[in-house]
Amino acid sequence: MIKITNAKILTLDNSFDVTEGDIHIDGDCISYIGAPKDGVFEEVIDVGGSLVMPSFKNAHTHSAMTFLRSFADDLPLDRWLNDRVFPMEAKLTGEDIYAFTKLAVLEYLSSGITACFDMYFYLDDFVRAVTDCGFKSVICSSINDFGGTPESVEEEYLKYKSISPLVSYRLGIHAEYTTRLETIKAIAALCHKYGEGFWAHNSETLNEVEGCIKRYGKTPTELFDSLGAYEYGGGGFHCVHLSDNDIDIFKKRGLWAVTNAGSNTKLASGVADICRLFENDVKLAVGTDGAASNNALDMFREMFLITGLQKLRYGDASACAADEVLKAATVGSARAMGLYDSDVLAEGKKADIVVIDLDKPNMRPINNIVKNIVYSGSKQNVKLTMINGKVLYRDGRYFLDESEADIYRRAEELSDRLKKK
Amino acid sequence: MIKITNAKILTLDNSFDVTEGDIHIDGDCISYIGAPKDGVFEEVIDVGGSLVMPSFKNAHTHSAMTFLRSFADDLPLDRWLNDRVFPMEAKLTGEDIYAFTKLAVLEYLSSGITACFDMYFYLDDFVRAVTDCGFKSVICSSINDFGGTPESVEEEYLKYKSISPLVSYRLGIHAEYTTRLETIKAIAALCHKYGEGFWAHNSETLNEVEGCIKRYGKTPTELFDSLGAYEYGGGGFHCVHLSDNDIDIFKKRGLWAVTNAGSNTKLASGVADICRLFENDVKLAVGTDGAASNNALDMFREMFLITGLQKLRYGDASACAADEVLKAATVGSARAMGLYDSDVLAEGKKADIVVIDLDKPNMRPINNIVKNIVYSGSKQNVKLTMINGKVLYRDGRYFLDESEADIYRRAEELSDRLKKK
Repeated sequence: MIKITNAKILTLDNSFDVTEGDIHIDGDCISYIGAPKDGVFEEVIDVGGSLVMPSFKNAHTHSAMTFLRSFADDLPLDRWLNDRVFPMEAKLTGEDIYAFTKLAVLEYLSSGITACFDMYFYLDDFVRAVTDCGFKSVICSSINDFGGTPESVEEEYLKYKSISPLVSYRLGIHAEYTTRLETIKAIAALCHKYGEGFWAHNSETLNEVEGCIKRYGKTPTELFDSLGAYEYGGGGFHCVHLSDNDIDIFKKRGLWAVTNAGSNTKLASGVADICRLFENDVKLAVGTDGAASNNALDMFREMFLITGLQKLRYGDASACAADEVLKAATVGSARAMGLYDSDVLAEGKKADIVVIDLDKPNMRPINNIVKNIVYSGSKQNVKLTMINGKVLYRDGRYFLDESEADIYRRAEELSDRLKKK
Repeated sequence: MIKITNAKILTLDNSFDVTEGDIHIDGDCISYIGAPKDGVFEEVIDVGGSLVMPSFKNAHTHSAMTFLRSFADDLPLDRWLNDRVFPMEAKLTGEDIYAFTKLAVLEYLSSGITACFDMYFYLDDFVRAVTDCGFKSVICSSINDFGGTPESVEEEYLKYKSISPLVSYRLGIHAEYTTRLETIKAIAALCHKYGEGFWAHNSETLNEVEGCIKRYGKTPTELFDSLGAYEYGGGGFHCVHLSDNDIDIFKKRGLWAVTNAGSNTKLASGVADICRLFENDVKLAVGTDGAASNNALDMFREMFLITGLQKLRYGDASACAADEVLKAATVGSARAMGLYDSDVLAEGKKADIVVIDLDKPNMRPINNIVKNIVYSGSKQNVKLTMINGKVLYRDGRYFLDESEADIYRRAEELSDRLKKK
C-alpha cells in the first residue's frame, strides 16, 4: 500500500473544494482519502503541501505523429497535408509507430496526462508501446477510403477492446470527407450490433462542413445522426463549426464534444464555440490532437487556450470560467473515453493521479488553486504522474521500461530515415 | 572565466542558424563563441547538447502585481479594476512591492527572462528587489492623474536612469485615458529636454481609442505624435487597436510596438494585428504584462499565442512564422528596452543567456529547433538562466540572496494582509 501524505487534495468529485490530508493506494486503486490515518505502507510519498488531483486525460490524439513535430509548420493546410504529412506517413512501419508513440507517452506524462484517445494505424505496435510504458489508451477506429474495411474494423474491435487492462477500443470513422457513405453506414451498423457509440473528426473546418452539405444536404452531425450512428452515443473530435441543429443533436444524443484548441489555432481552423456548448449542456472533453498540428502535447496550454479564445470570441473577460475547463480536461475527458473508473479521486477509483507543485512562482500566492492551474499553470508544475498506482514520472525523471535517452535516440534515427527521399 | 561547452548555439545575430561549440564568459561579458578552445576556466558548464541562446526580455510588466494572480479572474474589465485591483492597490506598501517583485523575478528566471520593462510604483523598493536578485530592469514612468507630477518624473528619471548597472529608466505616461493633456505635454517636453523616447499604454482597448478620438479627434498615437512626444522614438504597450495612420506613425518614428497577447486574450481586449505590423516594418517586442491580467509570466505561452492568434485572425496556417516571433521576444524586446548590449550572443555582449533543454520530449525529434521553441517549448525546457555571467537559475534551483521558500512565505503573508478588509 502507498500513502501520499502532506497533500492538498482536489478530488473534482462534484466539487472544486480543496482539502488537506492523505491518500492511500492499494494496488491500482485509491482505498482512502481523508485525514492522516495509521496503516502499513510499502511506500510513503510526502508531496510537501503539493496538490493531488485527478490526472488529465487526452481525448483526441494521433500519438505517433510526434515524428512530424516542427517539420510541417507555417504552411497552408493543403500543402501541410500533401507535401509533408502524406509522403512521410506512406513510409511508416510498425517500428516507427512503436518508437514515436513512446515519445508521445513521455510528453503526456510530463504534462500529467495518463490516457489518450488515439486514432492512427499499426495498432499492434501502438498497443505494445503504450502497454510497455504502463500508459492507458482508448483506440478509435480510423477507417476511411484509404485504409480499412468494415470487416477489419470489427476484427480490430473484438481484438483490442479488451486486449489489456490498459487498452480499449471505440468504433468510428476518420471523418465524413474521407469516407464513403456505405462505409459510414457499415460502421453505424457495427455500433448498433455492439451497442457502441460512434466517433469521428467532426466539423473541424468550414470546408469540411460545406463539402458535406453539398454532398448530402446535411452537416456531418446531421448525416451521422440520420444514419442512426449515434443510437448509443459517442461524440466528435474538434467540433469547431457546429450549427444550432448540430448542438441540439449533441445534446439530445448525449454526445461528447472533444475540443482541440491548440490544433485548431495552429492550423487556423477556427475557434469552437465552447460557451454555446456549455449553455446547451453539451458534454465537453479536451484533446491535444497530434504533434504534427499542435505541436505540443500540453494540457496546460490547451486549457488556457480554451478559456482565452472564448474570452476573445465573446469580447468578455468573464466568459468560460476556469473551473469548467479544468473539469473538462480531467473528468470530462475520462468519461468521454469511457474511463469512469478514473474520472475523479474517490475510494475505489483507479489511482490515475497528478501531483501539481505549488512551490513554483507561477502558483503563488495561492489565491485560488483552480484558477492558478488553468491561467498560470504549466508542465513545470507537474511533480508526479501516476497510473494505476504506479509512479511513471516524478521530479522530471521517468520510470519506464526504456530510458528516455534511448527513446529520443531511436526517434531521431527513425525520423531521419523518414525524411530521406 | 566560465566555459559553456557541448552546446548548440543560436546567436540570433542576423541569423537563425544553429551551430555547435563553446561560449566563454569573462566577467559579465561573452568573450568567445566558436569551436572548443583551450583556456583557464574557473567553471565549466557542460550543457550536454542543449541549446544556448539569448535570453528573453520582458518588454511590458507590472512585476509587483503578482499578488493579484487568480484573485481577479473571470470578471468583466470594469469589475476587475474597480472591485479587485484598485482596492488592493490602495493598501500597498513598499514592503509589499519588494516581496511581490521578487516573486515575479523567480517566475521570470524560470521562463528564461533576464530583464523587465516595468511600470508600477514604490520605485526604491522595486529597485532594491531586482538588484538584490541580480535581475535587470528598465523602469518606465507611469504618471497619471492619480499619481506623479512632471517634476517627480524628472526627479525619478535623474535618480534611476543610472542608479545601478542593472537598472535604467524611460520617460512616459501610464496612458492617455488616465492622464490629462497638460501632463502629457509636460512629459513630451521632458523627452525633448533629455532626448528620450516616449512610452505609454497605447490602444489596448477599443474603448480607450474611441474615448481618445472623442476627447481630441485623434487616436492616442496621433495625439502623442501631434504633441511631439515621439521626436526621439519610444513606443507603445499593447497596440491592439492601431489604425493605418497609427501604423504609419510607428513606422515613420521608428517606434516599438510591444505586444501582450496573453493579457489581451485573458482580458478580452482583442488581437493585435502583428502581421500588418510586420508588413509595415514596425519593430516588435513582447511583454507578459502583469500577473493580475495574464496570469502567467511565461514567454513560451506568449510566443505561441502571438503566432497562433495571427493564424486564427487571418484563417491562414502560414501566417506569422515562428522565427520572427522568437526574434521579437529576445532581440526585439532587448532593443526596445535599450539593452543593445545583451540583444544577441556575440563577443563583447553581456552574458544574458538561456539554456534550452532539448532532452525533453516536446523538443524531439529535432526537426527545427526554432519552431520547436515557439510551437512546443515550455518553461519545462529552461535549464539555466544567466544574467551578466551569473547563473541565477539552473535545473529548477535558484541562486539568489533569499531562498524561494522565504519569498513564497512572505508573499503569502503580505497578500493575506491585503485581502483582509
